[in-house]
Amino acid sequence: MCRNTGPEDVYVKVLCCGICHTDVHQAKNDLGMSNYPMVPGHEVVGEVVEVGSEVTKFRVGECVGVGTIVGCCRNCRPCKSDIEQYCNKKIWSYNDVYTDGKPTQGGFADAMVVDQKFVVKIPEGMALEQAAPLLCAGVTVYSPLNHFGLKQSGLRGGILGLGGVGHMGVKIAKAMGHHVTVISSSDKKKVEAMEHLGADDYLVSSDSTGMQEAADSLDYIIDTVPVFHPLEPYLSLLKLDGKLILMGVINTPLQFVTPMVMLGRKTITGSFIGSIKETEEMLEFCKEKGLTSMIEVIKMDYINTAFERLEKNDVRYRFVVDVAGSKLDQ
Amino acid sequence: MCRNTGPEDVYVKVLCCGICHTDVHQAKNDLGMSNYPMVPGHEVVGEVVEVGSEVTKFRVGECVGVGTIVGCCRNCRPCKSDIEQYCNKKIWSYNDVYTDGKPTQGGFADAMVVDQKFVVKIPEGMALEQAAPLLCAGVTVYSPLNHFGLKQSGLRGGILGLGGVGHMGVKIAKAMGHHVTVISSSDKKKVEAMEHLGADDYLVSSDSTGMQEAADSLDYIIDTVPVFHPLEPYLSLLKLDGKLILMGVINTPLQFVTPMVMLGRKTITGSFIGSIKETEEMLEFCKEKGLTSMIEVIKMDYINTAFERLEKNDVRYRFVVDVAGSKLDQ
Repeated sequence: MCRNTGPEDVYVKVLCCGICHTDVHQAKNDLGMSNYPMVPGHEVVGEVVEVGSEVTKFRVGECVGVGTIVGCCRNCRPCKSDIEQYCNKKIWSYNDVYTDGKPTQGGFADAMVVDQKFVVKIPEGMALEQAAPLLCAGVTVYSPLNHFGLKQSGLRGGILGLGGVGHMGVKIAKAMGHHVTVISSSDKKKVEAMEHLGADDYLVSSDSTGMQEAADSLDYIIDTVPVFHPLEPYLSLLKLDGKLILMGVINTPLQFVTPMVMLGRKTITGSFIGSIKETEEMLEFCKEKGLTSMIEVIKMDYINTAFERLEKNDVRYRFVVDVAGSKLDQ
Repeated sequence: MCRNTGPEDVYVKVLCCGICHTDVHQAKNDLGMSNYPMVPGHEVVGEVVEVGSEVTKFRVGECVGVGTIVGCCRNCRPCKSDIEQYCNKKIWSYNDVYTDGKPTQGGFADAMVVDQKFVVKIPEGMALEQAAPLLCAGVTVYSPLNHFGLKQSGLRGGILGLGGVGHMGVKIAKAMGHHVTVISSSDKKKVEAMEHLGADDYLVSSDSTGMQEAADSLDYIIDTVPVFHPLEPYLSLLKLDGKLILMGVINTPLQFVTPMVMLGRKTITGSFIGSIKETEEMLEFCKEKGLTSMIEVIKMDYINTAFERLEKNDVRYRFVVDVAGSKLDQ
């Protein structure tokens, strides 16, 4: 049951919702902080059914999206700088406690009530299922490219790991006009990376000749690998002032030797989803470039199988649940 | 014996020369790449005695400085961007081979012949002995603050480790108008850090209460520690978008867990000395701010003892050899 629609709230009928790796972790309590019953789902696309009296951003009937965050303090430095994803009091879309003391519930449900500040418009003409993964995977890649000054065309980027986030990385970087190299542990994904996703180059990390030839060639690498891996081979690929941007939550310490960063003034950094403002920008960018995600649409009764396949990275590249078509209310 | 003064060369009578930790490493072959006989010394201050026919930057009688580098390719991207310290073909001031095929020799000698491109003017009125450490330790700190956009006043900086580079860090950051916290493994240097160097705060890294209170408070940390150390305690001190700037060449891998950088979009980076352009800027900045180094002046016959004391970090904060006063030619 959703809360009543407050003055600043938007009541959203959920149409579809992407499945992110985090949903699996949360559902299975892999992070040790899950509370049940839980309704996961944070790549939510739906239709506005009702708006509160103070809502100015949305009208009934519009298609909207909700991502990872549904609340923040609005007073701290990140909030005041419109990067509320870094607010220490942010409220997660699910498995968190809302300002009314009740649990937050995500998009694997027939409806959500969300403060208008955390709702974005889905640009007209964009396929709704394909828009869903943009709300987390898409903005997760867009935000660091935007923040670290890596949007201009002509840059050379690397995408390490080709899952849900990685595939959006290739598409968004290509749409920005970058030369994109996919870096992977095997050549299994070479054809799809180059032919389906449009990557310009493909490097197998164990191919020492190829790695050496590509040394000092990349302006940035988006590193989506979610488990321990050595950083030196990838730091070597970066040019002077190149940036290694980490996206995977890895609790085993990663390692590097200092001359690897000092002698090329290289940067190891990371980034966490993106702001509402960046989500809006990214959606407009995707619309303008005709860019969408590659997905497999499922019904809700397939979700346990989807979770299993996702854990084996057996999806090209994101599952999206057709929530409205799953008739949850029957 | 120096080479003859070529058309672009400046013949410099050495007056004094700082001792950097690298000189000890090189003299003792700690890095496994020393060639003997060797003349170390790369914080050189001297007087111009002769100039080549094409030299336009200097006149006989002027006081000049020479730092870590005396040659570069002039064609690569770093060279064309005036950051020749990152040129892959840079030529070190000593223990390297010059374009004429002969070994380069540093400032622990009565004279040096150096291409004018790698010579800087010492601003008038600056004490020569105090200028020497600026040519390596000084610019090593100035360069990353300049490059990473950390020069404006009001920032909060941390200096980790209080040796030759660290003490310049405190002085330069204070002169930029920063609030400076020295972070150290013990409270032994607290009085000198705050009273002699002008630091605003002092943190002992093992003081968990103090460290916790200082969490999320610093815009940057200049990390001068030259041995393995955990990074997490210092990453915690950084604000959102804060930068940990590594200056110590450490071949034991340093470690961190990715959420520590992702959740605050923090940066781990490093920097390597500074360019000639930055050295000139830094000298002008020091002159304008009346900023000097804290040194202990010695004669050449004390150098072995100085090396031993430097290895024990037993100097406040830099030895400078009075080369001219050591009468090397007698």
